[in-house]
Amino acid sequence: MTAAAAKGIATRGFAVSGPEAKFEPFEFQRRELGPKDILIDILYSGICHSDIHQARAEWEPLIPSLYPMVPGHEIVGRVTKVGSEVTKFKDGDIAGIGCFVDSCRECGACHHGIEQYCIKGSAQTYNSTEMDRQTPTFGGYSKHYVIDEAYALNVNAPEEALPGVAPLLCAGITTYSPLKKWGVGPGKKVAIAGLGGLGHMGVKLAVAMGAEVTVLSTSPSKEEDAKKLGAHNFVNIRDDEARTAAAGSFDFILDTISANHDYNAYLSLLGLNGVMVIVGVPTEPAALNAFSLIGGNKVLAGSLIGGIPETQEMLDFCAKHGITSDIELIKPDYIDTAYDRTVKADVRYRFVIDMANA
Amino acid sequence: MTAAAAKGIATRGFAVSGPEAKFEPFEFQRRELGPKDILIDILYSGICHSDIHQARAEWEPLIPSLYPMVPGHEIVGRVTKVGSEVTKFKDGDIAGIGCFVDSCRECGACHHGIEQYCIKGSAQTYNSTEMDRQTPTFGGYSKHYVIDEAYALNVNAPEEALPGVAPLLCAGITTYSPLKKWGVGPGKKVAIAGLGGLGHMGVKLAVAMGAEVTVLSTSPSKEEDAKKLGAHNFVNIRDDEARTAAAGSFDFILDTISANHDYNAYLSLLGLNGVMVIVGVPTEPAALNAFSLIGGNKVLAGSLIGGIPETQEMLDFCAKHGITSDIELIKPDYIDTAYDRTVKADVRYRFVIDMANA
Repeated sequence: MTAAAAKGIATRGFAVSGPEAKFEPFEFQRRELGPKDILIDILYSGICHSDIHQARAEWEPLIPSLYPMVPGHEIVGRVTKVGSEVTKFKDGDIAGIGCFVDSCRECGACHHGIEQYCIKGSAQTYNSTEMDRQTPTFGGYSKHYVIDEAYALNVNAPEEALPGVAPLLCAGITTYSPLKKWGVGPGKKVAIAGLGGLGHMGVKLAVAMGAEVTVLSTSPSKEEDAKKLGAHNFVNIRDDEARTAAAGSFDFILDTISANHDYNAYLSLLGLNGVMVIVGVPTEPAALNAFSLIGGNKVLAGSLIGGIPETQEMLDFCAKHGITSDIELIKPDYIDTAYDRTVKADVRYRFVIDMANA
Repeated sequence: MTAAAAKGIATRGFAVSGPEAKFEPFEFQRRELGPKDILIDILYSGICHSDIHQARAEWEPLIPSLYPMVPGHEIVGRVTKVGSEVTKFKDGDIAGIGCFVDSCRECGACHHGIEQYCIKGSAQTYNSTEMDRQTPTFGGYSKHYVIDEAYALNVNAPEEALPGVAPLLCAGITTYSPLKKWGVGPGKKVAIAGLGGLGHMGVKLAVAMGAEVTVLSTSPSKEEDAKKLGAHNFVNIRDDEARTAAAGSFDFILDTISANHDYNAYLSLLGLNGVMVIVGVPTEPAALNAFSLIGGNKVLAGSLIGGIPETQEMLDFCAKHGITSDIELIKPDYIDTAYDRTVKADVRYRFVIDMANA
């Protein structure tokens, strides 16, 4: 496959041509560097479950799938060229790219550094368009990216840690932001519901923030893993006795489960004034009893990734605490298999594509 | 009807003997005053929809109905006798009683002044028992109440305002507490969903707190009333054009609706980081889409009345701002009719029983 010829920087990646297609090599162009742009040689690109949803057109009609699609929004690479006005990066720096690469820069959300909520809609890293609403965006399963430095992140981590840094750009910020917003820290009893790509990051971050952390899971086999990740406790929520013993005991629950599940059962584990934040998106609406919130002054909230300033804060926090994602590094020819295994939750806890050697 | 003879203070009230019974005169005893108790001659007692649910056994099995039942937890009366150690009240003072009359006084909730969440369960004003878990409690549709001064409120309002003060003890605190907790005040765009007993208090309180207040209602006929109560705007939420125009525009929604309704539709009216608090309890669980919260970092929370310190704060706030409930004063022989009219929402906005002349 090749994209329509355009003036720019030739690059190549891996794309699907439709919802049932396999990944194939794909040649396309990145734009020529503007004065504030940087060129990144991509080293590592994480596979997020949302890549699969979009590659397979599972979010249509809400989010249309545009083909050919080069997914990937958990990107780490080396800066190899900078525009004339760039100040944040120099040649050789390591940079990160997350879920979006531009926004209107004028609305309240953009001014407050929560560009993911840009009122005009931010430009997503792939399966989207630039802010001109015409030029398609292609993601991190590729060799290069050109991005305005304002939307790229500074990565300060040892070379060998970089594969595990890539997933921080989505899974890391998605879990860090609500933990931070709701004051998770020493003295707080925190539960992480679900131990997948998001959940395992939630455990590491909440532990590093100083909280007492419990993993809630339907898989008793995950207890050993939970403890290895630093969790202090584990509750098999299908065990009636264990669940009853945990009732009313948490200050905060981070619900990372994207399968359909009963919010009321999880809310019952919160104590007075407790807060549960959902970051997973089940396919069906959940049945919520008013009394699950009223009985205990409880809060149910949502959270969507994070803005550029908070993503940088998260990366710095992770660097300071030596936190990366647990990953399985793969070659590009393994992406289709990795997708199937991700759907079966058969990965601990994130596939990352080695683009440096692709 | 008479209750089993017991040593105490003879009094009388109005009780139902079963879920389908009419109200009848009922003679019973209040306890002799302990050193910290006060005796209150009840002047006014509001009719709350929860009185009807309990009198008619509509909340069983969650909350069993105990008969004979004397409902009433929106009580204002005159103190006529005080125990030897009472300090908060003297003879002739006006006192209020709300939804509970005692609690364990030892748990974290009691220590923090949120006795409604007492871990052992507070003693409800009626259809409950004292903390001995044996002595039944009878409510405000009666001539007298004996209560520990720690659970009674000081009322400072002119005599003619007292009928409208009674509903503050439940409808007032139920709406005040979440408005206060979530920072409603100048510069905030606040919507009150539903214009009944709770909603009309929510409008008055939010306006007094300095917010820009909009009433959301399915009844266009309520627009005039909403404006009279002080609301700045009105949105008929069945009007697609008006609802669309209001999308994303509120910082806070107080949802007072107890009929089944679509939370997602109301959440869509919140802006970024918006908060909706539910104080009504629909009979069916609501279908909640995760994206209704995730798309906009939104919060859905519950709130249950308020503790003694905050109830006193609310009464003082209302006294300062001249806020009372809009009421229709009735005689005790009208209670059955008032119940039927309350169920049909045919009251603006609260029935209050004139117990002073009963």
